[in-house]
Amino acid sequence: MVKYASKLSRESIIDIEGIVSKPDMAIAGASQQVDVQVRKLYCISRAAVLPIEIENAARSEKPNEDGQNTRLNNRVLDLRTAANLGIFRIQSQVGTIFRQFLLSEGFVEIHTPKLIAGSSEGGASVFKLDYVKGQPACLAQSPQLHKQMSICADFGRVFEVGSVFRAENSDTHRHLCEFTGLDIEMEIEWSYCEVMDIVNSLFVNMFDYLNKNCEKELEAVRRQYPFEPLKYLPETLRLTFAEGVQMLKDAGVEVDPMGDLDTKKERKLGQIVLEKYGTEFYILHRYPLAVRPFYTMPCDDNPEYSNSFDVFIRGEEIISGAQRIHVPELLVERASARGIEVETISTYIDSFRYGAPPHGGFGVGLERVVMLFCGLNNIHKTSLFPRDPDRLAP
Amino acid sequence: MVKYASKLSRESIIDIEGIVSKPDMAIAGASQQVDVQVRKLYCISRAAVLPIEIENAARSEKPNEDGQNTRLNNRVLDLRTAANLGIFRIQSQVGTIFRQFLLSEGFVEIHTPKLIAGSSEGGASVFKLDYVKGQPACLAQSPQLHKQMSICADFGRVFEVGSVFRAENSDTHRHLCEFTGLDIEMEIEWSYCEVMDIVNSLFVNMFDYLNKNCEKELEAVRRQYPFEPLKYLPETLRLTFAEGVQMLKDAGVEVDPMGDLDTKKERKLGQIVLEKYGTEFYILHRYPLAVRPFYTMPCDDNPEYSNSFDVFIRGEEIISGAQRIHVPELLVERASARGIEVETISTYIDSFRYGAPPHGGFGVGLERVVMLFCGLNNIHKTSLFPRDPDRLAP
Repeated sequence: MVKYASKLSRESIIDIEGIVSKPDMAIAGASQQVDVQVRKLYCISRAAVLPIEIENAARSEKPNEDGQNTRLNNRVLDLRTAANLGIFRIQSQVGTIFRQFLLSEGFVEIHTPKLIAGSSEGGASVFKLDYVKGQPACLAQSPQLHKQMSICADFGRVFEVGSVFRAENSDTHRHLCEFTGLDIEMEIEWSYCEVMDIVNSLFVNMFDYLNKNCEKELEAVRRQYPFEPLKYLPETLRLTFAEGVQMLKDAGVEVDPMGDLDTKKERKLGQIVLEKYGTEFYILHRYPLAVRPFYTMPCDDNPEYSNSFDVFIRGEEIISGAQRIHVPELLVERASARGIEVETISTYIDSFRYGAPPHGGFGVGLERVVMLFCGLNNIHKTSLFPRDPDRLAP
Repeated sequence: MVKYASKLSRESIIDIEGIVSKPDMAIAGASQQVDVQVRKLYCISRAAVLPIEIENAARSEKPNEDGQNTRLNNRVLDLRTAANLGIFRIQSQVGTIFRQFLLSEGFVEIHTPKLIAGSSEGGASVFKLDYVKGQPACLAQSPQLHKQMSICADFGRVFEVGSVFRAENSDTHRHLCEFTGLDIEMEIEWSYCEVMDIVNSLFVNMFDYLNKNCEKELEAVRRQYPFEPLKYLPETLRLTFAEGVQMLKDAGVEVDPMGDLDTKKERKLGQIVLEKYGTEFYILHRYPLAVRPFYTMPCDDNPEYSNSFDVFIRGEEIISGAQRIHVPELLVERASARGIEVETISTYIDSFRYGAPPHGGFGVGLERVVMLFCGLNNIHKTSLFPRDPDRLAP
């Protein structure tokens, strides 16, 4: 039997029959302090020669080392590392906390269609396909339209966890062609601050839970990819866009006060906020109207600004949210001002003609939440079988 | 103000300022026994002339009446009926129980890609599209491949709640071109019965919960679409396929003992089982190998049969499950026997070459679970924005 066992290839799966006993001496490095005197041994599945060794896949990355493609080509083996098993258990928890928190706040889970007539919100980054009878269709780039329609259908508060598709031909550390969107939409009583209140309690709740209940998984990730625990406050910091611009100016950065922040400026602001407030998680709100989608509600007191916000983790934008325009006439006006042909979005606009409550919401990518919470450097690490412009398999 | 109020159109949304008091006399038909003396009234959103009246949409269907298309064309209004608000709250609960139960049994939630290279499991019912750089791709018809790969990646037990796409050009009461799949896959210790054990405890748990906690929603559905509560046993009845065939034969139905059951025979067997065992929820297992997918594990004691099962609610098949073949050589043999070109599924087969544990699982459509639990006659009623060969909007 020993001879047979010694010839078994690595990663083969075996069944063992034996006698379990308590070891006389502590076994170093073993999580289970147990001796098994093997009597019988069956090979259930014999592994062929491995294309990558798990030990190698489990090593810390050297800077600039590009083993990622090889690992992703052999994802089934790559996923067997302790770090990867940890990452996807954390991901499963993030989804669970997201849903449990929202259900406890009176939200209803919905499932909106991914197959859309025409070309979704437009733009180049849409996957087009032929529907059953040759009708032109595309894959939804977000559940925006249908989650707003659910609010117009008296659902009150809704959320969705679902696939989102972006045919973007850019290979960055934070983009995927397919990811899991966490989306919410809710009626608003007084102000878009109610949506930011949900962001605050949802994420503070989530971070607390992960730190407390996923210690083992976080430790497994940290061993391969060292990172500092996320710094966040019990009550999430909220800055207006104008305040953010001022902070950047004070630090000597040139900023257009009515333009958008590029990723470099977002990172810089993240640094300043961390130094000043001791948090890597904060909300920036009241963005200039001009840099937000046409359906964003302008501010009551100053229509140059909007009832919108972005949320940042470790200097990277992770959530985009806003109050939406629920008044069809204003929606037509804003769409026209942007040069959008109103007929092409008539279904969307018509949804608000039969009684539509004020509402707002936000969207966030599950893979980005896990990536940034764990301080990982690439979104491929938090997607089970990632899809990018060059990768459609396995 | 009264004049203004009387001119407000139906379904308009208003804010009221007033004084709340306890009514002197009980208000018949009101769920909230409260008087409000209105002082101020604001119209937040004025409804245009409604294309359908909510009262009409909320009426019981007359036999053969086809108002469904009109209602679906105006889904945002149609969804405002008490029955529809109930249906989608029940749907939200079904998803919640599915996940909570599985998490408590050690399952991990995964998200597998919907964009697949080539043509998925093949067949005509696949949506094809061009990927980013013109590479041919298609939409996953099920997460079968990737959930099995997750088991090969040492995840142990996984589940997924995600979109499933079928380009089927058939408009039946139980088919959709896009639906929400509830899928599980798990390592097996001894036998495929472990997968049926999960089916049993998951669904008995779910039905108990819905009956206990969704009374109000079920009542709202029942008022518009009368139905009898589902009859099920605390321990789900399991019959072998051979037993089922014998029961049909005893009832005078001609059946091929090694063929599949058509929907008519499935219904008939459902009736017989209900009369004999008093349940509308049961499992039929050990199907003939010939009528199951090529990757189904044959029975140890008789390779004419397979370690597979279907689950029925109210006479309709709802779940399909089985132990899968985890031995690459057997998989090649079985695929070849079915005339499948082995090269076209090499990624699938190769997943089992590096150590693969015995495993099995099942898949079920969320919309079908809700439809059959509530005794509804059409799957369009349980899809928020349904997609069928003729419907790609709203």
